[in-house]
Amino acid sequence: KNLNKWDISYHNGNKNIEIDGTFQDSIYIFKCENSAVKVNGKINCISVDGCKKLTLICDTIVSYVEVINCNSIDIRVIELTPTVNIDKSQSVNVHLSEKALDGNTTVNTSKCDAVNISFPNPEDKEDEVEYPIPEQIYTIVKENKLYPQIYFHDKSSYYFPK
Amino acid sequence: KNLNKWDISYHNGNKNIEIDGTFQDSIYIFKCENSAVKVNGKINCISVDGCKKLTLICDTIVSYVEVINCNSIDIRVIELTPTVNIDKSQSVNVHLSEKALDGNTTVNTSKCDAVNISFPNPEDKEDEVEYPIPEQIYTIVKENKLYPQIYFHDKSSYYFPK
Repeated sequence: KNLNKWDISYHNGNKNIEIDGTFQDSIYIFKCENSAVKVNGKINCISVDGCKKLTLICDTIVSYVEVINCNSIDIRVIELTPTVNIDKSQSVNVHLSEKALDGNTTVNTSKCDAVNISFPNPEDKEDEVEYPIPEQIYTIVKENKLYPQIYFHDKSSYYFPK
Repeated sequence: KNLNKWDISYHNGNKNIEIDGTFQDSIYIFKCENSAVKVNGKINCISVDGCKKLTLICDTIVSYVEVINCNSIDIRVIELTPTVNIDKSQSVNVHLSEKALDGNTTVNTSKCDAVNISFPNPEDKEDEVEYPIPEQIYTIVKENKLYPQIYFHDKSSYYFPK
């Protein structure tokens, strides 16, 4: 730890990394594989960069959790995060709590595939429901403008504004 | 050429590749760098796979032009293509003709960044206008569903349905 920044780099096969943080702390997890990180307490932000097969469990995030250049990441937010940013990554599962269901969490994705969001099933809270984030945009060129739209493979999972 | 399939692979620095095709022909351009391909006539489909710094000029495409795992590709469609598919690629410029402006061309993008679409400027057809394809999706989790929306950095280029 350096000032308010925790640096967790190059762990391989370490499933017992645990941090007790404060709301001023930021955590940077870099190039870890087959590992698990548990973060207790309220944290400012967490970055996961260049990791494979990583499990991250955290409580409350003040600003964001971000995932960049990763493959096979499992994130569980026990309390709440306002933002999850996922960029240039694949196979990212984000498990949110019941508190996210009031519209308090936004997930931003770019250059990603196989990103799934899970939250408690309203009919059985011990269970989870999982929805994929759409990953394809189709753009029609017409009348000298672009008409970009999200391509929904399975429309049942989503809300469509009227 | 094998039956109706043209195979253009591993060219480096060859700016003079030219093909005269028929509507039954498909063209597969693989691992070419710093090269230029010109395709004359009506072609069934063209795939560009794993290429860098490639220029592709084509006339009329019956089904699609696709770009996969590429970097720095410049495509000019002189007549018309119904579909352009761009996947896992960056820095792709697609130049369309006036004929695309009737809504005849759809561009599908996934896992891409820096994809731009150009077409003739309606006020000066010698000139082009260029619009970026949006690349980020933000998804709000709310009421047990996902609300995915395209994130538009510059709203002036796009059409928004009412």
